[in-house]
Amino acid sequence: METNVPPARDKLLFTPGPLTTSLSVKQAMLHDAGSWHADFNAIVRAIRERLLALAGVSQEAGYECVPMQGSGTFGVEAALSAAVPRDGRLLVVANGAYGERIVLITKTAGIETRVLRYAEDTSADADDVRRALAADPGISAAVIVHCETTTGLLNPIEAAGAAVREQGRTYLVDAMSSFGAYPIDVAELGIDYLISSANKCLEGVPGFSFVIARRDALLASAGNARSFSLDLLGQWRAFEQHGQFRFTPPTHAVLAFAQALDEHEQEGGVAGRGARYRANHATLVEGMRALGFRTYLAPEVQSYIITAFHDPEHPRFAFDEFYRRLSDRGMIIYPGKLTQAPTFRIGTIGRIFEADVRQLLAAVRDVMIDMGCLDG
Amino acid sequence: METNVPPARDKLLFTPGPLTTSLSVKQAMLHDAGSWHADFNAIVRAIRERLLALAGVSQEAGYECVPMQGSGTFGVEAALSAAVPRDGRLLVVANGAYGERIVLITKTAGIETRVLRYAEDTSADADDVRRALAADPGISAAVIVHCETTTGLLNPIEAAGAAVREQGRTYLVDAMSSFGAYPIDVAELGIDYLISSANKCLEGVPGFSFVIARRDALLASAGNARSFSLDLLGQWRAFEQHGQFRFTPPTHAVLAFAQALDEHEQEGGVAGRGARYRANHATLVEGMRALGFRTYLAPEVQSYIITAFHDPEHPRFAFDEFYRRLSDRGMIIYPGKLTQAPTFRIGTIGRIFEADVRQLLAAVRDVMIDMGCLDG
Repeated sequence: METNVPPARDKLLFTPGPLTTSLSVKQAMLHDAGSWHADFNAIVRAIRERLLALAGVSQEAGYECVPMQGSGTFGVEAALSAAVPRDGRLLVVANGAYGERIVLITKTAGIETRVLRYAEDTSADADDVRRALAADPGISAAVIVHCETTTGLLNPIEAAGAAVREQGRTYLVDAMSSFGAYPIDVAELGIDYLISSANKCLEGVPGFSFVIARRDALLASAGNARSFSLDLLGQWRAFEQHGQFRFTPPTHAVLAFAQALDEHEQEGGVAGRGARYRANHATLVEGMRALGFRTYLAPEVQSYIITAFHDPEHPRFAFDEFYRRLSDRGMIIYPGKLTQAPTFRIGTIGRIFEADVRQLLAAVRDVMIDMGCLDG
Repeated sequence: METNVPPARDKLLFTPGPLTTSLSVKQAMLHDAGSWHADFNAIVRAIRERLLALAGVSQEAGYECVPMQGSGTFGVEAALSAAVPRDGRLLVVANGAYGERIVLITKTAGIETRVLRYAEDTSADADDVRRALAADPGISAAVIVHCETTTGLLNPIEAAGAAVREQGRTYLVDAMSSFGAYPIDVAELGIDYLISSANKCLEGVPGFSFVIARRDALLASAGNARSFSLDLLGQWRAFEQHGQFRFTPPTHAVLAFAQALDEHEQEGGVAGRGARYRANHATLVEGMRALGFRTYLAPEVQSYIITAFHDPEHPRFAFDEFYRRLSDRGMIIYPGKLTQAPTFRIGTIGRIFEADVRQLLAAVRDVMIDMGCLDG
């Protein structure tokens, strides 16, 4: 398959990000914007307002949107550092790699933590959250990952939120890979800080994350930041005072994101985007099952964002070869193995459609036959 | 000048970044790359090696290049946090806003600091650095800003480096706005950590910074990081172990940067890029002087990156109007006022040429006449 002729199209990314975006989103990056200029600042302001609206809230209702440069992890760290006072403790609900990453963030930042840990295929139980908080009044905040991208597992952010609110603690939701494709009403769920990224279900390009915060919680966070660059309150103050990012923003990624939000709206917003991803996922699972693959999670806890499959038990199956042969056919699945069980993952988000998923399924079939794992 | 018809061209950015980049650099962003994929990782590896070469070093010679997501400040914070042990102290040489920003970073991170402060028009004196270090053996590291973008002031990184080396301390240079247009031999100058950005003289788009570090210093920094996201050693280990950014990189900005490095090389590398900027600067200063403007800095300490001019004393001169009228003519100068003195700044970096500077000068003349500050 090696050739020096460049292909006409990029490989399709069946991954949880960076993901395939529309050409029009990428074309929005063909401009250099001055980050100090009024035109650019108007775009930033509009983005912040539109993200609040997608979360069912507004500035009038007491919420703020704070974009933060860097990957999603940078936004999570900024929110955690704001939410937990220097003498506070954090409850981390963990059932996968991203919950565990939060634990690592708190270790480096010196934030004392209690971990409520589950198996990777087990959704959190709100009653456990309630009991853990009731048992330790020194815990000031609780954080949960909505869609654990490790497996595609969904956690019950509504029931957990009720428990956190009942116990009067600060509630953080890492909605990195769900926001924009699952409805999340930040006010109704009592979320104080929600973190997501430009490059997941909103289909922008990577370069920044964003935090949607209850303003009173944010204002009360003065002095909490452990990092100057990742100081959420400082970042927000810069937006308020000058309408600008505090430090140089990824201007091109911001321009792309404005276009991505337009296209999200054109698709019918969260409902429309979610419907496409749900169809992608359903087609994927049905097709993979027909080829003999088994899903790792029970359907009740499975999101339509990303799906983990058990490695086939056939002795000739080797994931590296499977991955490479699919890549040679122009399709990239997620190569990382994050679960403890022998599984692999296929994402169904980004600018991909059912027809693309069917193309992937045909390629999976061919590759399995070529590898001698399936009869032709 | 208000119209609904979009212009054919972007406004030219006479700023220190985000800056005007070539169309070919922006076009490199019309692709979605999988950050886990071998093709992308090969690009990242090549970028890291080329940056080392631009700094006059290599992995074989014991140096490492660690890109870091976010703005330049994120890279500075990551380097400072790696370089200063938890019981160490840092000497900050400060003669402008970026030196002062380093002081702010250390305050939030809990890094004890001594500040060697100069007036904004005064270059640092290496003998002062030597004396400050000799007087306090508890200072483990010293940091200096090469080109203080506040004014365009150049600090003597060679002489200061000799002083730091003589005193046996770790030496950090913030070369954000100089690297790529001024020759810097990291080994010869005894620099342990050099920080710069994709979006300054290398003319990429904003999205990440990078640190060039002496490997032994970097390896000795274990446990120093105060932030998980900005953990320089952790970031480097991910590159070493998996060839990947530890967390999602701004893939499009990385693709643009590979193209930007090609174009830097085509222009003749640091010498060629520096020559163009020097010519831009000379043309600017000569033309502005002819219009009655005075430079803020003495020529001996003035870089060709950005130039501060005294506000004209004419009673009709108002910077906001001056800025807006230039913007209406398609030229954006730097709107921020960072100096204590009444000055404004014009950048001469990015994909701009002498002809663009002449166009700016003609616009400045017209605007000054229109404002009644100059006779036609």
